[in-house]
Amino acid sequence: MNGAEALIDTLVRSDVDLCLANPGTSEMQLVSAIDRVPGMRPVLALFEGVVTGAADGYARMRGKPACTLLHLGPGLANGVANIHNAQKAFSPMVNVVGDHATYHRQYDTPLNADLEGIARPVSHWLEAGRTPAELAALGAEAVAQAGGVPGRVATLIAPADAAWSELPGAYAPPALPARTQLPRVADATVADVARALRAAKSPLLLLGGQALLDDALVAAGRIAAHTGVKLHAETFNRRVQRGAGRVPLVFLPYRGELALQMMAGTDLMVLVGARSPCAFFAYPNRPSELVPPGCRVMTLARPSDDVAAAVVALCAALEATRAEPARQALALPELETGRLDTRRIAQAVARHLPDDAIVIDEAITGSMPAQQTTAGARPHDWIQLCGGSIGNGLPLATGAALGAPGRKVVCLEGDGSAMYTAQALWTMARESLDVVSVIYANRNYAILNYELERVGAGEPGARARSMLHIGRPELDWCDLARGMGVPGTRVETAEALDAALARACAEPGPHLIEAVY
Amino acid sequence: MNGAEALIDTLVRSDVDLCLANPGTSEMQLVSAIDRVPGMRPVLALFEGVVTGAADGYARMRGKPACTLLHLGPGLANGVANIHNAQKAFSPMVNVVGDHATYHRQYDTPLNADLEGIARPVSHWLEAGRTPAELAALGAEAVAQAGGVPGRVATLIAPADAAWSELPGAYAPPALPARTQLPRVADATVADVARALRAAKSPLLLLGGQALLDDALVAAGRIAAHTGVKLHAETFNRRVQRGAGRVPLVFLPYRGELALQMMAGTDLMVLVGARSPCAFFAYPNRPSELVPPGCRVMTLARPSDDVAAAVVALCAALEATRAEPARQALALPELETGRLDTRRIAQAVARHLPDDAIVIDEAITGSMPAQQTTAGARPHDWIQLCGGSIGNGLPLATGAALGAPGRKVVCLEGDGSAMYTAQALWTMARESLDVVSVIYANRNYAILNYELERVGAGEPGARARSMLHIGRPELDWCDLARGMGVPGTRVETAEALDAALARACAEPGPHLIEAVY
Repeated sequence: MNGAEALIDTLVRSDVDLCLANPGTSEMQLVSAIDRVPGMRPVLALFEGVVTGAADGYARMRGKPACTLLHLGPGLANGVANIHNAQKAFSPMVNVVGDHATYHRQYDTPLNADLEGIARPVSHWLEAGRTPAELAALGAEAVAQAGGVPGRVATLIAPADAAWSELPGAYAPPALPARTQLPRVADATVADVARALRAAKSPLLLLGGQALLDDALVAAGRIAAHTGVKLHAETFNRRVQRGAGRVPLVFLPYRGELALQMMAGTDLMVLVGARSPCAFFAYPNRPSELVPPGCRVMTLARPSDDVAAAVVALCAALEATRAEPARQALALPELETGRLDTRRIAQAVARHLPDDAIVIDEAITGSMPAQQTTAGARPHDWIQLCGGSIGNGLPLATGAALGAPGRKVVCLEGDGSAMYTAQALWTMARESLDVVSVIYANRNYAILNYELERVGAGEPGARARSMLHIGRPELDWCDLARGMGVPGTRVETAEALDAALARACAEPGPHLIEAVY
Repeated sequence: MNGAEALIDTLVRSDVDLCLANPGTSEMQLVSAIDRVPGMRPVLALFEGVVTGAADGYARMRGKPACTLLHLGPGLANGVANIHNAQKAFSPMVNVVGDHATYHRQYDTPLNADLEGIARPVSHWLEAGRTPAELAALGAEAVAQAGGVPGRVATLIAPADAAWSELPGAYAPPALPARTQLPRVADATVADVARALRAAKSPLLLLGGQALLDDALVAAGRIAAHTGVKLHAETFNRRVQRGAGRVPLVFLPYRGELALQMMAGTDLMVLVGARSPCAFFAYPNRPSELVPPGCRVMTLARPSDDVAAAVVALCAALEATRAEPARQALALPELETGRLDTRRIAQAVARHLPDDAIVIDEAITGSMPAQQTTAGARPHDWIQLCGGSIGNGLPLATGAALGAPGRKVVCLEGDGSAMYTAQALWTMARESLDVVSVIYANRNYAILNYELERVGAGEPGARARSMLHIGRPELDWCDLARGMGVPGTRVETAEALDAALARACAEPGPHLIEAVY
């Protein structure tokens, strides 16, 4: 058995069974090992940003890592932006990056790069396996380091000769290290927070990570019902259960003024797996920290703690375990007609989201209307871009569909953002994934028009505008989708979008709808 | 005047007048400054890999850097693979990367990343300008550091507050540092090489960089005519002048066995801005170094030296200045008919390349036939992928067209490679660039089928094949091109390709031809 086979076998034994891949020559032994070692499903993507973004989407639904297979330093570099996004979402990920044979690097051939240097800024854990046995042992360690949720990014460098060389003896699967336990929040902290909540006049819980799912979310709902505390989610979240029957909560708005306005009068903010709110960007003469004046900020649980257990403990400490949480009523918007805008797009989405849908939200300027309008839609999961690097949505949708077969994925995607990693459409077609991609086709980096004013740069002239507007030439998203094997529909009115979404949500397989407005 | 304006003004004064951009909020002040400061042409691309690859293509034609404008760590990361390729081609490049305001980074908001860590592996020079005055001074320094050809990558980090803050006093344009002089090769080295060449039985000159252009190439031709030395270029070259009337030379083949076979019997190899030949990848039981047995290797000039001056000096030392170099005769292939293959594609290209065309070669398995068949085409420049990271071709073509208006660019591009940075087509349409992209549509990472066997991984099974073949679903390149505003033609026979190329080369503006085989 060679190093490649031992590594793949170890990954499979560690419960990693999906390999998102864009391999090259230095990974051919690993490709070949996936043939021979049972249990690993390979899924090809035509660009590494799709590979890493899909691994993130899979982890968000499954709570465990997929592995990626990437080609040397430059191949990894192409995936870095979406690894960054995954890190900010605390998604576990195991990157396997092939490298030149150990003895070959000295020749500094064309693909040689500072692979470790490229990996380090986006890896919590980084090792290279220099022998076949090391490869297998480090494979197991990588999975343990990546963990579950909240998870981390583990990167394992696999030199070609370590992959192709035979183990010195018979293969003994390495011991699988226990996954790191999440730090539990101290009882004293829970008691402190409970005491402060009881004393506060207008408190809020800012929920993040696992507090937005399952029992933890219900516990937060009980706390709110029992104490009157307000519930908010952060602006960008890894995954939120929402819609009819779920505990309602409101996302903090992207615009700092609106966030501060929403929180005005709050005297206590408790961070529950969330971070203290800050402006996304700095702006001249505006605050970076978004805490209302006079508001005390307490941390119940950091994002890397066992957040779910902390919420349940707080619920008990407040004697709220029998309180009945508020539940969102089903409330589907009426169909408005006429030319599309972000509100009308959101209405159609809200009307047609099937039970248990997964929404990927990279609609940027379309996000806030979409969030508001879908609050009373059928129960669904809401997944967001957490690291701000656009081009996350279509890959996330790909990975979420791979991780949650049988559930419909609806991807709300800005046109500018979609162009970063549009290759994801091809993988959706290849794997027959149930993804409906709604392209917000406003022919603009629309957010930047707004940001240009906010940074005090004044009225844009022709050259500045040429860097914000992407409408010359117009992208045709139906052509692009068809070119990658995905059927597309172009709509310009609310009624046409409504009909197209009804159809696309009813049919299996990928669809794209270009919503022009 | 604010820091952004001072920086743009300084770049323009330093003879940098093209800004390839994909900006975000943190760069809005720079976008706005380009409006107000005359002399900088902004060109938008929809993905950063296009930005950096186009900067490389521009530098290859102009011998001076363009600047890029990139959005924080993740935006830079998206451009890293093509910066890597530019580094291996010794192209000068000035990257301007916006960052959060200096006081805002502490909040570690979503887009915050280890920007310096991401930049370092692909930057010869890296600085951050923390004040408006520093930004301008470092802008001048960055251009000096990037240099000409051979050049380097200079990365300047521009925090938003340094860009938006006013200079403390009146703006005095910073002194422009002199560009670093290229190291001259010592006379003694030239004399040594001349002596060795005279004594050798079967010598060859391996030419790289500036030795492949202009007077240096003619001097190499004189040396060959006078001494009988063979002339070779490396396998991958930044830019070669070739075709009818030019000094003929042969590229070393990609396959190590073929390269060794071609050089068999050579007793002296002189490196002239080239590196000692090595296998692109390591393979079990095959050599990494590709030097024939018994061959002595001498270095006349390293790639970073003044290579052109060294060749001219060697020509003089050998008293070859009056020798008449061999000149390639015009030899256009006949039109063969029938189903396409890489040879027939190459024939059509060779027949229709107009005078002074620029060929971008990322045809991968199609490259060698293309190089051989175009040897006697009309005079042209040949530009290659030097860093091995695919997705370089369409961006290189974009940048070459921006850098050499009036010359036709023909981009020979593998379908798998084209998918990495297909967004370049949109910029070609937007800027009406004279680029004919020929997509080698074999629906395969064809090189990998060959490499899989070479690394000894045996016959691929279904799962391995699924990671090499990209034909399910089939990409439709005409749809993809049309979606980005570029007219496309699909051809399956040599005669159809011949007609399509004749048309596309005669018309201005971008065209795409999908050559299916």
